[in-house]
Amino acid sequence: MTLDAERRIRASFGKQTFMRLLGAQIAHVAPGEVDIALPFRPDLVQQHGFLHAGVTAAIADSACGYAALSLMPADAAVLSVEYKVNMLAPAKGERFLARGRVIRSGRTVTVCRGEVLAFDAQGDARPVLEMLGTMMTARDRGIVD
Amino acid sequence: MTLDAERRIRASFGKQTFMRLLGAQIAHVAPGEVDIALPFRPDLVQQHGFLHAGVTAAIADSACGYAALSLMPADAAVLSVEYKVNMLAPAKGERFLARGRVIRSGRTVTVCRGEVLAFDAQGDARPVLEMLGTMMTARDRGIVD
Amino acid sequence: MTLDAERRIRASFGKQTFMRLLGAQIAHVAPGEVDIALPFRPDLVQQHGFLHAGVTAAIADSACGYAALSLMPADAAVLSVEYKVNMLAPAKGERFLARGRVIRSGRTVTVCRGEVLAFDAQGDARPVLEMLGTMMTARDRGIVD
Amino acid sequence: MTLDAERRIRASFGKQTFMRLLGAQIAHVAPGEVDIALPFRPDLVQQHGFLHAGVTAAIADSACGYAALSLMPADAAVLSVEYKVNMLAPAKGERFLARGRVIRSGRTVTVCRGEVLAFDAQGDARPVLEMLGTMMTARDRGIVD
Repeated sequence: MTLDAERRIRASFGKQTFMRLLGAQIAHVAPGEVDIALPFRPDLVQQHGFLHAGVTAAIADSACGYAALSLMPADAAVLSVEYKVNMLAPAKGERFLARGRVIRSGRTVTVCRGEVLAFDAQGDARPVLEMLGTMMTARDRGIVD
Repeated sequence: MTLDAERRIRASFGKQTFMRLLGAQIAHVAPGEVDIALPFRPDLVQQHGFLHAGVTAAIADSACGYAALSLMPADAAVLSVEYKVNMLAPAKGERFLARGRVIRSGRTVTVCRGEVLAFDAQGDARPVLEMLGTMMTARDRGIVD
Repeated sequence: MTLDAERRIRASFGKQTFMRLLGAQIAHVAPGEVDIALPFRPDLVQQHGFLHAGVTAAIADSACGYAALSLMPADAAVLSVEYKVNMLAPAKGERFLARGRVIRSGRTVTVCRGEVLAFDAQGDARPVLEMLGTMMTARDRGIVD
Repeated sequence: MTLDAERRIRASFGKQTFMRLLGAQIAHVAPGEVDIALPFRPDLVQQHGFLHAGVTAAIADSACGYAALSLMPADAAVLSVEYKVNMLAPAKGERFLARGRVIRSGRTVTVCRGEVLAFDAQGDARPVLEMLGTMMTARDRGIVD
């Protein structure tokens, strides 16, 4: 992956206003790999006070999407076709890290694994979400990344 | 479902600060059925300007969770075990409606179907997300809804 | 859908030796719709004596795949990209019917909903499996259906 | 895991007549881990001559279910709640190995990752299926494993 590829991912991520609303930031980019970091905030919780599964799933989806994009040609865009998530534990923590990893890269379809780790005040991590999802290389649709 | 059940769901939803951040509101409650409405906002988009899949999935997850809760005993809480979503079309619209419906209600496990509709300025709707998910009746875990 | 389309689906299904091994047969074909019927057999069970989830999922997958193919151009083949199934109840019954239905048909990606019904000796049915899956239109891969 | 636990898994697997029909066998058992091996047979294919996704998913489901059972108390049974599979490549090979691994073990819910590898005549392997699924500890339901 060239610097251009990383720049492309960061530029596209910068247009995701929803990630900004969440306070999420790209923490790592490599070929087939993207990590997204998110500090806890009290306005992101579900009814029991834990981070909402919609938030953990959203950062995992973005991490997987950009991991897929890191391996796509320059004239393509990435679309999330579908994903499945398992919530492994209540999302309790001071900060969170979503890791997206490509497990199969094809011409049209890219399969990604994602996970979200929760870090406590001591820096100890435990997994709170596991994702398995499908991304698509989109061409000739009037969109680019 | 009694008025108490509806009150319970609205009270629990009110504690989901993340739904407030999104601007989501409960639009319908009936036994095994909850709808959540969300107006479009430019700070909720992905890189192509459409509503972020993380947002549509989050309101579908909440709609499914509360649809499940509507059939649970008073001393229980609802937990999202897992869900899978397919993005059917770009989430373009002026407002969105997530519909959660219970398709199988058991002692421990409840299976829900969710969908999100996008409405354009003329009020025409089209489906943008389909969800199939699993909710759990949680007891004796120090949480209630 | 023309008679040719139905013939194409039945011919392709006829090549699925695994469906023959299971004793499965096509019961209905229409545009975007395929049903597959399967009588119970004692060599198809899991450890508690119910039909193995692998069997119900397999007939639902084939029903969804052919429902998708019914809307694809003549020079294409159908590939199962992924699917998710929920087991709704133990698969107890004298015969089973898998129903595959297209819920979104695109140029490359088709999304299908599947369900499997179990019929008892009186002919009463109940749902035992729900599927949500993604099929792909494959071209130029040296395969046709 | 005691020898008893392994014996329990092999005894339960022996009742899965469907695994016998497929020619599948347990190849490895350890705490939280079960592998199932399957030789290719021409009566297990889909329309393009590859192993049917229903077969690869079925052995992955059984491997995950027994991996979950390996960590469950003696008076419980295992039920597949749901699973999602991605087909990573055509299932071409002389023999196949499904690996089920527990990634989160709870009182009621166990989350498993599964994968199926295809081996060619030279013994080289490649992944053809990835699974993420949910198993449940069932008690007081008149079934044991």
